[in-house]
Amino acid sequence: MAVGSGDLGTLHPVPGITMAAVSAGIKQQGRLDCVVFALGTSAKTAGVFTTNAFCAAPVTLCKKHLAQTSPQFLVVNTGNANAGTGQQGIEDALTVCLKIAELKNLPVNTILPFSTGVIGEQLPVEKICNVIPDALDNLQENNWLDCARGIMTTDTRPKAASTQVQLNGQTVTITGIAKGAGMIKPNMATMLAYVFTDAKIEEEVIQSLLENAVNKSFNRITIDSDTSTNDSCLLTATGENSVQVTQDSTEFIEALDAVFISLAQGLIRDAEGASKFVTVKVEEGASKEECLELAYTVAESPLVKTALFASDPNWGRILAAVGRAGIQDLDIDKIAIYLGELCIVENGGAAPLYSEAAGQQVMDREEINIRITLGRGSATETIWTSDLSHDYVTINAEYRT
Amino acid sequence: MAVGSGDLGTLHPVPGITMAAVSAGIKQQGRLDCVVFALGTSAKTAGVFTTNAFCAAPVTLCKKHLAQTSPQFLVVNTGNANAGTGQQGIEDALTVCLKIAELKNLPVNTILPFSTGVIGEQLPVEKICNVIPDALDNLQENNWLDCARGIMTTDTRPKAASTQVQLNGQTVTITGIAKGAGMIKPNMATMLAYVFTDAKIEEEVIQSLLENAVNKSFNRITIDSDTSTNDSCLLTATGENSVQVTQDSTEFIEALDAVFISLAQGLIRDAEGASKFVTVKVEEGASKEECLELAYTVAESPLVKTALFASDPNWGRILAAVGRAGIQDLDIDKIAIYLGELCIVENGGAAPLYSEAAGQQVMDREEINIRITLGRGSATETIWTSDLSHDYVTINAEYRT
Repeated sequence: MAVGSGDLGTLHPVPGITMAAVSAGIKQQGRLDCVVFALGTSAKTAGVFTTNAFCAAPVTLCKKHLAQTSPQFLVVNTGNANAGTGQQGIEDALTVCLKIAELKNLPVNTILPFSTGVIGEQLPVEKICNVIPDALDNLQENNWLDCARGIMTTDTRPKAASTQVQLNGQTVTITGIAKGAGMIKPNMATMLAYVFTDAKIEEEVIQSLLENAVNKSFNRITIDSDTSTNDSCLLTATGENSVQVTQDSTEFIEALDAVFISLAQGLIRDAEGASKFVTVKVEEGASKEECLELAYTVAESPLVKTALFASDPNWGRILAAVGRAGIQDLDIDKIAIYLGELCIVENGGAAPLYSEAAGQQVMDREEINIRITLGRGSATETIWTSDLSHDYVTINAEYRT
Repeated sequence: MAVGSGDLGTLHPVPGITMAAVSAGIKQQGRLDCVVFALGTSAKTAGVFTTNAFCAAPVTLCKKHLAQTSPQFLVVNTGNANAGTGQQGIEDALTVCLKIAELKNLPVNTILPFSTGVIGEQLPVEKICNVIPDALDNLQENNWLDCARGIMTTDTRPKAASTQVQLNGQTVTITGIAKGAGMIKPNMATMLAYVFTDAKIEEEVIQSLLENAVNKSFNRITIDSDTSTNDSCLLTATGENSVQVTQDSTEFIEALDAVFISLAQGLIRDAEGASKFVTVKVEEGASKEECLELAYTVAESPLVKTALFASDPNWGRILAAVGRAGIQDLDIDKIAIYLGELCIVENGGAAPLYSEAAGQQVMDREEINIRITLGRGSATETIWTSDLSHDYVTINAEYRT
């Protein structure tokens, strides 16, 4: 199951970036499971990573390499997360980096490693190293779709987004890919996402552009409230284009945010077992923090999620979730709750004009908006989530078999 | 599904307490859905209630009445929660109390009302009032099982616990019933639980005995992390027995706690769709708060819960949940994780002696212990939970149909 068409539109090449997806046979022969990106020598890259204390070995190594120098290659494998693997895990991730470093005659810290898949098994280093020469021989500038497929695990379809903006009379391109369908409540990062642009962005600017974009996109989604050990999100600017981007480049920032939001929503539309795409918006809060807290409490409630799956306008469950979110001094008489355009709760009880038939009409939709107004301030937050279906249980009960 | 035999043992009468369960036909003709307890004039009662801001009308009224005087009757209906029902809900709950007050010639505030069931529908007051005379005519001292059945909603079996202790050469009895199978993460209260004793307990003592017992039992369980709008838990001491209980009555307190823990565990064993009874124990924490936080993060992780359902020793999911619990300065090298008696994680990675076959043997059990040692203090907490199965989704997707 997945929500919406999944049509990715045109995926524009980004001058300076080449890529390849190959099969290392990690979990399955012939499946694309190893992806390499070449970034070029002038590229600037920023990254955000999982806040999980048990972060995976490649995450530890990525952060270390990124702090030392500008990366020139990214290497990603699926089928194995290289997490919970101790010191051996670090050595294994380093061995994969070394393979590329030797073949390309580069320092090892210019290579960033990424892994995603089952936690707690040692990385099949040999399988990966064996196919790296093949990947390096086949780097192309327009292989987005294969690479988006090559980083998938329980995803049912590839996620990618691309846009072009005119800046100072020049065309600037932004293209990215992402993966993730479960264990999704990113915290300063997502499962795996790589976004590239040919704009010029200085190092002191690119990290804050990335963090801002992530806070509007990957840090506003939740599938099952679980934060992965491997979440990583990178933004690379090749600088092949002469357009210089700064903190004030509004048009570029809007285009960048749109690509990030499209990728993040793409994860939700393809969430494990998803049959609904749900937007939860909290308005009139005293602070952004309380809006987020409340939105997540609703979005992560198993009872709200199963009602969404059943298309059941059981709004009492939304009300119960709002009530237990732990917001200080909440005055329920000031709260209104909307399902789509329909007011379902006001003044602490059912809205007088609400009817079950009208509620059913909204719940039957594939895309559902839940809007909660608190009447105690001007803060607003929006997050996106999916429903909780039989397929979610099946997928996660059978993942390793 | 439910875990364990559900055998309730002997349910002893409590001198001074009589009860009746009748059918008001609220959702289904002939089903026991209305329960009345008579407590007697000398009984002392303490209560704890949901912290949900959208608390139900009967909860609001219960708190008010309990603050004014000692209750003499409890009246409970299922099939309708009388929550999210606004001012009408308060009036409806009061009407039910008035019916008993009139028939028994008592002030209305000596009656405590309780409701459980669907949120957001108006209470069928007439149906309930119609059967109250019948209930009052049939009060008996040993009708625990019918009353435990009469407060059930999605429960598949009644929950009750009973014990007797010898104090000062006299037999003191403690007997209680409870209900709840979903929307269970009680906060200072559970779904519905009523515990009775014939001991003498002063008003200033009984509330703290109740709160202590609840903190070891109902406040240590979670099914789906949802806190109900209607949670209520009462402890009544009739004082028919001459034994006086104080804060120092260790034997009595141990017996009381055992009844509460048995009832709370009974809810988990019959959790919606449960096929596993899971104990999560966190040891060597810096504080009880962080032990609880971590235990709940593991117990509520949908990925851990689906792995438990699948009997899959996918310990990486436990490790990932521990890592994302947000504990400050967690040193993963000091953490060990045990599945039953088996060490699965130590020093930040898989335990050297761990084998998949040994892990499988533990996960195949119906009752599973997960123990996490943090190596940073002496605090300990234990909570109980269930797995996340297809039946949970089915039950909650079809609850209102």
